[in-house]
Amino acid sequence: MTFKAYKLAKRPAGEFTDDCFQAIELEKPTLKDGDFLVKQTHMSLDPAMRTWVQDNEDSYIEPVRPGDIMRSYGVGEVVESENPDYPVGARVVGITGWAEYTLGGEDMQVVDKSVDVQALLSVLYVPGFTAYVGLMKIGRPVKGETMVVSGAAGSVGSLVGQMGKAEGLTVIGVAGSDEKCRWLEEELGFDKAINYKDADLEEQLAAATPNGVDLYFENTGGPIQHLVFNRMNRLGKIVVCGNIAEYTNEVPNPGPSWVDINLKALRVEGFVITDHYDKVDESMTAMVGYLQNGQIKFRSHVLKGLDSAVEGVQLLFSGQNQGKLFVEL
Amino acid sequence: MTFKAYKLAKRPAGEFTDDCFQAIELEKPTLKDGDFLVKQTHMSLDPAMRTWVQDNEDSYIEPVRPGDIMRSYGVGEVVESENPDYPVGARVVGITGWAEYTLGGEDMQVVDKSVDVQALLSVLYVPGFTAYVGLMKIGRPVKGETMVVSGAAGSVGSLVGQMGKAEGLTVIGVAGSDEKCRWLEEELGFDKAINYKDADLEEQLAAATPNGVDLYFENTGGPIQHLVFNRMNRLGKIVVCGNIAEYTNEVPNPGPSWVDINLKALRVEGFVITDHYDKVDESMTAMVGYLQNGQIKFRSHVLKGLDSAVEGVQLLFSGQNQGKLFVEL
Repeated sequence: MTFKAYKLAKRPAGEFTDDCFQAIELEKPTLKDGDFLVKQTHMSLDPAMRTWVQDNEDSYIEPVRPGDIMRSYGVGEVVESENPDYPVGARVVGITGWAEYTLGGEDMQVVDKSVDVQALLSVLYVPGFTAYVGLMKIGRPVKGETMVVSGAAGSVGSLVGQMGKAEGLTVIGVAGSDEKCRWLEEELGFDKAINYKDADLEEQLAAATPNGVDLYFENTGGPIQHLVFNRMNRLGKIVVCGNIAEYTNEVPNPGPSWVDINLKALRVEGFVITDHYDKVDESMTAMVGYLQNGQIKFRSHVLKGLDSAVEGVQLLFSGQNQGKLFVEL
Repeated sequence: MTFKAYKLAKRPAGEFTDDCFQAIELEKPTLKDGDFLVKQTHMSLDPAMRTWVQDNEDSYIEPVRPGDIMRSYGVGEVVESENPDYPVGARVVGITGWAEYTLGGEDMQVVDKSVDVQALLSVLYVPGFTAYVGLMKIGRPVKGETMVVSGAAGSVGSLVGQMGKAEGLTVIGVAGSDEKCRWLEEELGFDKAINYKDADLEEQLAAATPNGVDLYFENTGGPIQHLVFNRMNRLGKIVVCGNIAEYTNEVPNPGPSWVDINLKALRVEGFVITDHYDKVDESMTAMVGYLQNGQIKFRSHVLKGLDSAVEGVQLLFSGQNQGKLFVEL
């Protein structure tokens, strides 16, 4: 038996292009003791993929090198097993790769089949864990604060904003289309959403934050970073979760001057979830709670077939995805 | 009776110049109940003075406006008093202003006359409190870490480096002359000191930090900021205490990109001591301890007479002071 997979053919210079990936056929592996084979059913496409393929041996995670199977998170079903912890028929979530089948690893978690797969990939697993760690552990929100979220219609940003509302914050979202802004305001309950492509962005931001900004949840980088930074209140907190607008620049744009970090006593703190695996259970409990209380809504953008990943991953960087992007295999 | 004082004549455009200050004669005030009059004996000159005169009504401290008596910290003796907490003859330390006499305020602390005045102004009071809060509360050093201190020969930097050695860190200082570097290495026990004016600064910094940088104590800003930032280890900490190289720029230079703040999970945190007055006693206890254990040495650069402040404050920005700068009145 053979199956289809995609390897990284070359590192992108800027944005991902079709020729960064190459389809290959692989032989189904023979299982050794402890192995199990997973048939992937749903594969997540995430902005972090762009950072994984950088030529950066010092990064928080092993880089994907040209010739390697492209990395992904995903959901699948165990179809063969020599591991009693992962029996045939179990549903698992974890690092899968761009492939129809994959050898499972110890990082994989068994998830009950009653859990809706879209809720799993859009809320409970990576986006929810990222939002939970970033907002609750790094941002540490206090009821009454004003929060600005960039990339607010993205998989993490949309959760962070809704969690902020549940925690009693005033929440301003920044997104890349009027349609996304309407969704944030009308469906998700953001106090205000601003289209960063508007010419009067700075004025809209000032009008939306008359008392300044206490908490800035940064997903994008780009010019908005400096505008929000300039509105930070003393003792404000900035959570640096992602910088998608910068990943495709060979030299990323500089950040704001540190003079105001000093004089306003700001805290600018980045994080990656691999440093926080000890908080997986508490995150899962919290996110299930938000869902059950109706405090979190989500939308998923589903593509069909492994081949669709090649173009699909490019949607993330043009901002054309509407909701959490994943591939149904 | 009249006495001499200096008011801020105009805000500086870049560095302080002589014509920023103007000597005036003031009438000795008549004391009301609760008042006390302080004859200033020693007046501290500090880099923060440049930030105090900015036209910034949102700053952490009321700005000094043209026409106001210039602000300073200083030491003096109570010479008249209608306040039993501050009796005649008591020595006090606090906010004084550029003046031979000043009405004391409730922020002033009475300090026993047995305390050496140079140790008081150079270690125990503002520089020591700043170093203590910045290193211990914001930087939170862990034995074995590598720390880089910029402005290492300055009043705060020289304390931070020595405290770092006492706490078991490898300490690299960056300063502005070979003489200062020798003092840091030979007298203060820094593991290495680098002259930032050297052409091979980047190579020297790399050679001095073979295991990267865990803690960066930033006093200066300027090009060194980006070089040290690029050597930060994952989960590194950056304490933004000051940016003296930027204060004289109308538009301060940008800081490093936030991409690595995210991917390396860095924490960049600023502070000003006015937010930490609850830690004055613990700081004083700690700094007295370092002094008594011989873990901290200091040198003072003493000018004579109030008039010397006008040129004296300019030494801070040209880096020509050698040790904690103050005026003996």
